Amino acid sequence: MDSHTPYTFSNRANQLTSSAIREILKVTTRPEIISFAGGLPSADGFPITELRQAFDTVLATDGRAALQYGPTEGYTPLREWVAQDLSTENVNIDVNEVLIVSGSQQALDMLGKLFIDVGSKVLVESPTYLGALQSFSVFEPEYVAMDTDDGGLIPAEVSTAKAAGARFLYALPNFQNPTGRTMSEARRQELVERCAAAGIPIIEDDPYGELRYKGTPQPSLLHLGRKAGATVVRLGSFSKVLAPGLRLGYIVAPAAIIDKLVQIKQATDLHSPSVTQMAVYEAVKGGFLQQHLPTVRDLYKQQCQYMLDAMAQHFPDNVKWTRPEGGMFLWVTLPEHMDSQELLHKAIERNVAFVPGEPFYAAGEPKRNTFRLSFVTVSEDRIREGIAILGQLIREQM
Amino acid sequence: MDSHTPYTFSNRANQLTSSAIREILKVTTRPEIISFAGGLPSADGFPITELRQAFDTVLATDGRAALQYGPTEGYTPLREWVAQDLSTENVNIDVNEVLIVSGSQQALDMLGKLFIDVGSKVLVESPTYLGALQSFSVFEPEYVAMDTDDGGLIPAEVSTAKAAGARFLYALPNFQNPTGRTMSEARRQELVERCAAAGIPIIEDDPYGELRYKGTPQPSLLHLGRKAGATVVRLGSFSKVLAPGLRLGYIVAPAAIIDKLVQIKQATDLHSPSVTQMAVYEAVKGGFLQQHLPTVRDLYKQQCQYMLDAMAQHFPDNVKWTRPEGGMFLWVTLPEHMDSQELLHKAIERNVAFVPGEPFYAAGEPKRNTFRLSFVTVSEDRIREGIAILGQLIREQM
Repeated sequence: MDSHTPYTFSNRANQLTSSAIREILKVTTRPEIISFAGGLPSADGFPITELRQAFDTVLATDGRAALQYGPTEGYTPLREWVAQDLSTENVNIDVNEVLIVSGSQQALDMLGKLFIDVGSKVLVESPTYLGALQSFSVFEPEYVAMDTDDGGLIPAEVSTAKAAGARFLYALPNFQNPTGRTMSEARRQELVERCAAAGIPIIEDDPYGELRYKGTPQPSLLHLGRKAGATVVRLGSFSKVLAPGLRLGYIVAPAAIIDKLVQIKQATDLHSPSVTQMAVYEAVKGGFLQQHLPTVRDLYKQQCQYMLDAMAQHFPDNVKWTRPEGGMFLWVTLPEHMDSQELLHKAIERNVAFVPGEPFYAAGEPKRNTFRLSFVTVSEDRIREGIAILGQLIREQM
Repeated sequence: MDSHTPYTFSNRANQLTSSAIREILKVTTRPEIISFAGGLPSADGFPITELRQAFDTVLATDGRAALQYGPTEGYTPLREWVAQDLSTENVNIDVNEVLIVSGSQQALDMLGKLFIDVGSKVLVESPTYLGALQSFSVFEPEYVAMDTDDGGLIPAEVSTAKAAGARFLYALPNFQNPTGRTMSEARRQELVERCAAAGIPIIEDDPYGELRYKGTPQPSLLHLGRKAGATVVRLGSFSKVLAPGLRLGYIVAPAAIIDKLVQIKQATDLHSPSVTQMAVYEAVKGGFLQQHLPTVRDLYKQQCQYMLDAMAQHFPDNVKWTRPEGGMFLWVTLPEHMDSQELLHKAIERNVAFVPGEPFYAAGEPKRNTFRLSFVTVSEDRIREGIAILGQLIREQM
């Protein structure tokens, strides 16, 4: 062997760094840690019996198809189910507008491939979902941070000069990850109108929409966008309504975009597993989610309340936090001079973990005095214990 | 809405075209078509009962884990199984050198992300697997065609000026798709030595290696490469030994490469489904493949022989074809002046389909007088009927 280096990575691969979250999550697998850091749904909400039955039925009755290659677009009955589930009296979603993917994360990767050239402008809420930033960043976009307030994304942001010519806006209108905030109908309407006028497609990521346990459901950007002439690509997932270990989700978009995504999906992994798609269809086809979701919502509502109660009791008055109407996360804002990264180091010494705010900011100045708490997988006792410790540490740092 | 275009795709997306194969395969789903075009394994070889039992056991005994998010690297016992399966007396594969992926196709996408910048040199056999070209092309490499002969890839090709500085060589040493050719041990040894000297990593794609039904097994490039100091990334798949609808495969590579691929996998789809990984482990852990594979091999051997016999009977003397020792495909070479695309048009009118050679050539002049036949999914009668029709059409075109 001579002196050549053994291999050369691509520029994009060299720019990848191990994520801060990933490193935190490694620590949090220790059983003594009270972790508010994870993004895992509660396994207490998994319909294990029903899914076991669904896999068994599919393999017993249609095993050859369940184990064979399938169409890149996805299992047709499941696509039809999604189309019907999202259709309303006024908005018809066609099966050709639905593509099954291996979880929303894959949708984000494929949309990065579809829309992003090196340096393409991409609009994101500030803060936004870290996993989306990881997927998009592989394709080296230029992020433009859209300002938010307690009501979520501020729609006027997409009509500013900084947003002009963007390839898309990425937004999570319901119980946003990381903030737990929800956009009002008025804001949604204004957003789709402004995006239609500016020719900016919207990627509506809505993994938590079905997990609303309070307040009034808001119309989707997909539905409002259809009427306003906006291009909306909607991402849905079975991870939070059934189980994430299935790795199944879907993209709903105009057929011309789906056609291109099908080509991309073929080059990405041919298709999502036939057996899991058929089992999910078997599980949901008879209306099971309508019976099942109230259980999950009640569970999450209760968990959320445990945390809100504990925070009200233990956090100082000058700390602020969101009060989500659904989903899995809430967002804490410390006084401006404080740094949540420093708080985390002290918290981990006391066996409590969370995710500091900084990595959720794609561009501009991150608000280092923020952090994300997940309330769904920790027991009531340990929520109270963990929040008490955080409250004490915050007071010590003030 | 003003006159803005509604959306702008990336350059890479604009360059994607619907593949020729995809269009052919659409035609071949009509039941009257005798299709030698597909790449589907035979469902007769799927261990449906065992996989049904495996899914049931996993969901009955470990349902919470099977339905929850899992590590990006893959389910640890399955990674350990792969490591052990590939370890020999002389070569030890560590669990940290194994990453579970959603089929080999995903491995190809991730390796494109890892190694290819726009214009990077990538070495491929000529002809080579079309699906790999689709995955790599998304990252816009410059392909360099490595010459082949009846013994497969000619190793001296990697030491030529045209190969210098390549990011990797992509090769299928066993029963290559599309040709069915296998490289001898001497060639493999020469190849890994030359690649080590030139500093060119090898991607060894071996989905069919376990489907040898004739001749002597050859050592893998992975094993030979370890001793020769070459960097070898080996791709394996459960698609051909269990079932493709599971969409599971694996990458074996030096730990430094796996670490980077784990970051890429996380941004691509977080991880492969927990439930399918655990079910596959449950199915294979007790040595099931050793019982199961002889059945699949016998089936494929028989199917191959049906086709070879029919070709000997019906094809003119100046047509040549390969005689594979395993796998699913053989490769036909017509007299030089003939064009297999023209033959295909006539064949489809007679309800027979195959894949013409041209799309398997990544660079240089394609041999238009070649085509690929798959022998595994068509019944004996219909093989005989389809080959007789092809023989007749070839004679008519001469």
